Amino acid sequence: MAETTRFMDAALEEARKAAERGEVPIGAVVVFDGRIIASAGNRTRELNDVTAHAEIVAIREASAVLNDERLAGADLYVTLEPCTMCAAAISFARIRRLYYGADDPKGGAVDSGVRFFGSPTCHHAPDVYSGLAERESAEILRDFFASKR
Amino acid sequence: MAETTRFMDAALEEARKAAERGEVPIGAVVVFDGRIIASAGNRTRELNDVTAHAEIVAIREASAVLNDERLAGADLYVTLEPCTMCAAAISFARIRRLYYGADDPKGGAVDSGVRFFGSPTCHHAPDVYSGLAERESAEILRDFFASKR
Repeated sequence: MAETTRFMDAALEEARKAAERGEVPIGAVVVFDGRIIASAGNRTRELNDVTAHAEIVAIREASAVLNDERLAGADLYVTLEPCTMCAAAISFARIRRLYYGADDPKGGAVDSGVRFFGSPTCHHAPDVYSGLAERESAEILRDFFASKR
Repeated sequence: MAETTRFMDAALEEARKAAERGEVPIGAVVVFDGRIIASAGNRTRELNDVTAHAEIVAIREASAVLNDERLAGADLYVTLEPCTMCAAAISFARIRRLYYGADDPKGGAVDSGVRFFGSPTCHHAPDVYSGLAERESAEILRDFFASKR
């Protein structure tokens, strides 16, 4: 449990760093064999790339580190419920466990929206643990959007 | 109509080139202002990257060309019905029209699976035209998998 908190804290730190860069503050880390092998915040604005969500950037980095497109045995920690694009990428990468912070009823695809992991076209589903650091994850997002208004 | 055929032919050519590289043969092009601004085949194996589907690679390239993460007014041609990940990326990129070849009942997310563009968490849906060069798109895939057996 202490480990889980530590990894989620690292994802929250990535979210905060994303906010400092003017990006929607969502952060993610990939954990393999008890250590963080990739960490990323949202980079869509910086890279002019709608696919550069924190989860996608972290998964691509983890695949480069392991030299394998499949991340079997790896766990992903992310501050917000993954969207439809990221849920599918998580499935394709064969992520073992997904830990996420705040729910995203408007854009999420795990416990909201298309609930991809339970759909017939999903061929690998991670174990899902939600609500970790939920309040803090949501607050970082709320503060960011409040400061933009 | 002749234009549509020309652009779909370019996507098919990308699919054939992907097969030559040993990749699952799917190809895509992005068209803006009447010309192809990005074209790509599937590169998941080469890049060790599960997110490197033809559509994602083409969208990222088009965003780099236009220096804009939003591809409003751009059309995407792809040989196979986009998967859940790609359908969401197409939505995020604000693609105007989606033209696709063969259906993909096992992995598609447009007219199969989660039918993302009709779901409440989809906030932009392209106009969809399906069945273009359907037979040829499917044949390229069938031949590829037959040769692997």
